[in-house]
Amino acid sequence: MIQRIDHLGIAVNKLEEAIPLYEKALGLKCERIEEVATQKVRTAFFTVGGTHLELLEPTAEDSPIAKFLKDRGEGVHHVAFATDDLLGQLAQAKGAGLRLINEAPVPGAGGKQVAFLHPKSTRGVLTELCTDGQH
Amino acid sequence: MIQRIDHLGIAVNKLEEAIPLYEKALGLKCERIEEVATQKVRTAFFTVGGTHLELLEPTAEDSPIAKFLKDRGEGVHHVAFATDDLLGQLAQAKGAGLRLINEAPVPGAGGKQVAFLHPKSTRGVLTELCTDGQH
Repeated sequence: MIQRIDHLGIAVNKLEEAIPLYEKALGLKCERIEEVATQKVRTAFFTVGGTHLELLEPTAEDSPIAKFLKDRGEGVHHVAFATDDLLGQLAQAKGAGLRLINEAPVPGAGGKQVAFLHPKSTRGVLTELCTDGQH
Repeated sequence: MIQRIDHLGIAVNKLEEAIPLYEKALGLKCERIEEVATQKVRTAFFTVGGTHLELLEPTAEDSPIAKFLKDRGEGVHHVAFATDDLLGQLAQAKGAGLRLINEAPVPGAGGKQVAFLHPKSTRGVLTELCTDGQH
C-alpha cells in the first residue's frame, strides 16, 4: 500500500537560483546536491516533515526536465508515493487501466527502486511509485 | 518554521472521474467531499502519511481552478506547507522579496488560516502557507 508522499520533483532552470528561494524565503535547508547521470539532472534535496522536495535542473538539452521546462516552464514536475509493495502497486495500477512508463522498477536517486505512471493516464500528474531507500 | 507539506491541491475537471483513479488505481480512500463556496470549488480529500491530497473541481466558470484548467489542463495546482508561525513565515517570505497573494491570512478549508504566495515569485509553484486545522 501507499505509505506517504516520498517527494515532490520540481523542475527549475538553475539550482543556484532556486535553492535560495527555499532557504531564504521559506526557511528550509538544502541537504545535498546529487547528479543523476541517467536522468540528466542535478538534484537539490530538502526535507519537509516526512517528505522531500527535489529541485531538478537539467544537465543536457535532451534531459526530460529540459523538455518539461520548454513546454511548461518551471513548476511541479512529478509526485512520488512511497509504497511497501512496489510490484503489487504497479500491478494494481496496470489492472485499473493506467499506462506505465516503467513496466518494471528501475534504480532511482538515493538507492530507491522507482517506476513512473504516464500523466496521460493520471490526469496530468506525472506519478512515481517508489520503495523507501532502506528497502 | 515550516513543519510539513500539509497538502497538494490537484486541479481536476470532475471529481467523479478523478476519485476512482486515486481509489482503484492507487488504493487510497476518499475521506470526504467539501464545497468551498468562497473558492468556487468542490474538494475531495485523501490522506497519505502526514499529507493530504485535495482534488479541486471548479463549481463556476470564474473559479480560479477553471482558469487553471483552461490554461494548463489537469495537474498539480498548488503545494501547501503547514507552519507553526504563519505571520512570521509570511513576513520572512515578503522580506526575501516574494510576492504575496494574501498579505494577511484568510480562512481556508478545514478551519485553517491560509495565505498564498504568487507563483511568479516562487518559480512556477503556487505556494500556500497554512496553520494546522487545530491551531
